[in-house]
Amino acid sequence: MTKIIVLRWGHRIRDERLTTHVALAARALNATGMILADVKDEKIQKTINSVVKNWGGSFFLEMGTPWKTALSNWRTRGGVVVHLTAYGENIQESDVMQRIKATHRDILLIVGSQKVPSGFFSSEWTDFNVAIGNQPHSECASLAVFLDRFYEGSELSRKFKDAKLVIIPCRNGKNLVSKNLEKLKIT
Amino acid sequence: MTKIIVLRWGHRIRDERLTTHVALAARALNATGMILADVKDEKIQKTINSVVKNWGGSFFLEMGTPWKTALSNWRTRGGVVVHLTAYGENIQESDVMQRIKATHRDILLIVGSQKVPSGFFSSEWTDFNVAIGNQPHSECASLAVFLDRFYEGSELSRKFKDAKLVIIPCRNGKNLVSKNLEKLKIT
Repeated sequence: MTKIIVLRWGHRIRDERLTTHVALAARALNATGMILADVKDEKIQKTINSVVKNWGGSFFLEMGTPWKTALSNWRTRGGVVVHLTAYGENIQESDVMQRIKATHRDILLIVGSQKVPSGFFSSEWTDFNVAIGNQPHSECASLAVFLDRFYEGSELSRKFKDAKLVIIPCRNGKNLVSKNLEKLKIT
Repeated sequence: MTKIIVLRWGHRIRDERLTTHVALAARALNATGMILADVKDEKIQKTINSVVKNWGGSFFLEMGTPWKTALSNWRTRGGVVVHLTAYGENIQESDVMQRIKATHRDILLIVGSQKVPSGFFSSEWTDFNVAIGNQPHSECASLAVFLDRFYEGSELSRKFKDAKLVIIPCRNGKNLVSKNLEKLKIT
């Protein structure tokens, strides 16, 4: 299966919750991990470690790598770089998703912020600029739609290895089961 | 076309950016408006007004309505209430989306936070509990996937009425056009 790693650019400490949401969405929708470019934020690391420990899987968070280093390394290893931006090719109206899939290569998926480096829009650094609609947007929302469309929904049926907590879906109430299949809470 | 209005529950002032992202995602993906339940936050109102003024459409933000009042009024007027939650029926593995569509009724879509009122899980207040995967998640990401699947992508081709700013999608760079079709910036 094609691996997708998210590169989060433009994180500021006051964005902690937003970046945490980007990481949670990435994990829930089958990304392999996330690189927090240029900065480190231990609070986010702690949150993600705790989620992975309890809910399973092997989602990783790498922090502090300069974005140019991350992009260069990725391309050297043969991966493609996709930049999510409202200015890019519309995922619904163009064939950009087919062209990305046709590369059959792992993807570094850049999720930016309001003012991103102009290099993100240039073929010097990125291979595709993709818009989840050409309107002002949330990077967290754009990421989610991209992953759901790329994996065609299969990501939502995935089981997470070594999970201590598992939700049993239900029409009403909550059904959360611990590792030993003891019911923790039903309300 | 079925109208979807988002009800954002659990906003705290420190969540300003996150709630703004929920509103931007809602607007970009074809929701009619958003109700910020129980609290008011003028900063968000200002941001959304500015986006609508420049980028068009008629997305509205209503603030301060108690959630019980909003839900009661909605059901009285014949609408259905859908609650997005990791505990709900999996949108991929169940037929919940078909059942929602089969109602042919407008939707109030609750986007919560970590600790939501237990009433959200009860048929006393909501009609469907829907999970965008049963993992810890971002409400902004869940909202985006729900809207993209509900409108089947058509929301991403929509033109916004009275827009002063329009993006012309392109493979590289930015192409932003003003109301009078003067190019503002190409980089």
